[in-house]
Amino acid sequence: MLTVQEAFACVMNTAVDFGIEEVSITQAHGRILRETIYADRPFPPFDRVTMDGIALNFQDYENGRTDFEIQGLQAAGFQQQKLQHNGCIEIMTGAILPDNTDTVVPYEDIFRNQNTFSIIKGIQKGQNIHQQGSDVKKGEALLYPGIKITGAEIAVLATVGKTNIRVSRQPKIALVATGDELIAINEEPKLHQLRISNVYAFQSVLNEIGVEAYIHHIKDDKETLHKEFSNLFAQYDLIICSGGVSAGKFDYIPEVLKELNVATRFHKVKQRPGKPLLFAVSDKNVPFFGLPGNPVSGFMCLHRYVLPWLYQSLQMNPVPVQMQAVLTKDVKFDKPLTYFIPVNVQVTSQGSLHANPHLTNGSGDFAILTSANAFMELDEKKDEFKAGEIYPVWFYKSL
Amino acid sequence: MLTVQEAFACVMNTAVDFGIEEVSITQAHGRILRETIYADRPFPPFDRVTMDGIALNFQDYENGRTDFEIQGLQAAGFQQQKLQHNGCIEIMTGAILPDNTDTVVPYEDIFRNQNTFSIIKGIQKGQNIHQQGSDVKKGEALLYPGIKITGAEIAVLATVGKTNIRVSRQPKIALVATGDELIAINEEPKLHQLRISNVYAFQSVLNEIGVEAYIHHIKDDKETLHKEFSNLFAQYDLIICSGGVSAGKFDYIPEVLKELNVATRFHKVKQRPGKPLLFAVSDKNVPFFGLPGNPVSGFMCLHRYVLPWLYQSLQMNPVPVQMQAVLTKDVKFDKPLTYFIPVNVQVTSQGSLHANPHLTNGSGDFAILTSANAFMELDEKKDEFKAGEIYPVWFYKSL
Repeated sequence: MLTVQEAFACVMNTAVDFGIEEVSITQAHGRILRETIYADRPFPPFDRVTMDGIALNFQDYENGRTDFEIQGLQAAGFQQQKLQHNGCIEIMTGAILPDNTDTVVPYEDIFRNQNTFSIIKGIQKGQNIHQQGSDVKKGEALLYPGIKITGAEIAVLATVGKTNIRVSRQPKIALVATGDELIAINEEPKLHQLRISNVYAFQSVLNEIGVEAYIHHIKDDKETLHKEFSNLFAQYDLIICSGGVSAGKFDYIPEVLKELNVATRFHKVKQRPGKPLLFAVSDKNVPFFGLPGNPVSGFMCLHRYVLPWLYQSLQMNPVPVQMQAVLTKDVKFDKPLTYFIPVNVQVTSQGSLHANPHLTNGSGDFAILTSANAFMELDEKKDEFKAGEIYPVWFYKSL
Repeated sequence: MLTVQEAFACVMNTAVDFGIEEVSITQAHGRILRETIYADRPFPPFDRVTMDGIALNFQDYENGRTDFEIQGLQAAGFQQQKLQHNGCIEIMTGAILPDNTDTVVPYEDIFRNQNTFSIIKGIQKGQNIHQQGSDVKKGEALLYPGIKITGAEIAVLATVGKTNIRVSRQPKIALVATGDELIAINEEPKLHQLRISNVYAFQSVLNEIGVEAYIHHIKDDKETLHKEFSNLFAQYDLIICSGGVSAGKFDYIPEVLKELNVATRFHKVKQRPGKPLLFAVSDKNVPFFGLPGNPVSGFMCLHRYVLPWLYQSLQMNPVPVQMQAVLTKDVKFDKPLTYFIPVNVQVTSQGSLHANPHLTNGSGDFAILTSANAFMELDEKKDEFKAGEIYPVWFYKSL
């Protein structure tokens, strides 16, 4: 049986590349950039006025002049004017600095007379000007492939005039619920039945990272499974299956995968929950994650294995990984398995991530997931985990 | 001029309630729940088998029997069977525990003979059964109004059969770019022109929290502004304007708001960047945020003021707020203003949030935003901020 690290390495080694597509800037949010973005001109593109007031030539001021004749007005969005001789031009924030001026004096430091402004406070040469190219030189690289596009990147893309952007193509993902005990959400369950829930949770998690996933429910019947899976492997980039991978009589999936030439890379991992995890790859390189049907197990495996595989396959750089957090209560777990415990991580007033473990009966209580926000990964080699010690956490909700 | 705390309190005091709408479970992701969700039955709903193996009556084992005749098979999704007399029933994970049995022995602890299983390892009464109602009692509250619906909550909603869910109605938001220097993204700028970018960045940020926003570009002309704003206040729940709020000659917005009976609550805040921030509320209670046109200023004000107002108005409970982080470099800022500095926050190997400040020229360099992920808020009352000290950060990207 593989360790968590071995299983994870095996999964990551099979990452693919979904390819590239072009989207418009208004659709680019959350997508992974696949080109380098360069400055099409310097930033600011011109000497930019940063205060409302007047622009003048500092030499005049240095020569002793304090009264400046108003020769014009330079507003943002208008062509550059020129100061003809001693005097000033009224200027507005965002405007281009008028030609033959080099210093901006804000309204609060001047006094208006009939046709002149008097300077009432000491000034410095070049003040209140955002110099051309002082932020970014023309041709400078601003964004690199692999970053996730958020608001800040959209501002850059718009500024350099990128209306269409090359991003990673989104994979088409199948979410398969198996289990004859499962019924539709809108049905009334008999005593021995349960409503389908895991795949809806998975769909929501995948939506959150901007990926579409389509739900299928397949009966635990070998022929049906064979036929349906054959179709799914032909149509999808990734198949995530919930249930049907433990060692039960009706857990036909390992067999069906074999018939379909889908090679099982591993089945079972030294971990709790999530021990029955199955990972396979088809002859056309379509991966199959068989997640345990238990809600907490499946949810953990999705975040610990499937999402990193997806991030890698979307060519994210860097791939988001676990963070370290401080355990706040002692935890004992004496099995030779890596233990994933639901924790509620909060930032303390001292800026530390503190992880409060939810000591459950280990039953896979789905309700526990809503009061926690991460899984803490506790090493198989240890049995006792003390308050104050630091271990990795995998978030499934933001802080 | 208001302090940041005063301005923030003023903004939060005007929070509204956008009302409630019903969405289907597949559309509920990221929405704010507005009803309490109860367990429609106990969880698990029946004594649920947690291992593949056999179910038997512990009394028989205690009486010395080690060989159990196979009397049937109980799979998940099938009606409950009954053990008739001494013996066992083969059972699968997820199945209902057969009547007249109380203990489950996994395959690894039994040995199969012709028609019987022999027990080859000590067993305990009640083992490997997830007891009915042990996680949740029928009628227990599972989710409360105000929470954000993510994957974990979707699992709960599906489990209790909620196909339609009451959530906060999404506001309709107008994003207004003003400034005659601004041109469309796909146009080639003249020297004194800039492409519209801030409102696209704002749109992306709002999309990230699941809210739609519509972009308008209005010329800096008093009559046009009056007419267009009059329409916007009639159509939208919230208006966010970029630019036009500093004291320039062509900054008509404060005047136009007055004409439209939109009461300015504050104009200018003791902060850098973002000093010109304007906040107003119409006679129909539609708020107006006038954000500075400088990209970094506007972006900061959006996250520090507008998003908390939105979270509050969406009835989120709790409203997400700032977190504390450790400053990693000395920062000096001797103006009597709260200083918002872009920082790159990372979690250290010790589980601490460390904020690495970007010491910029204060010019509003938009490119800086892509290499940082938060703003650190440095108090106006201090001038020196030392490495190792702890201050609040407002994230605009996830860690």
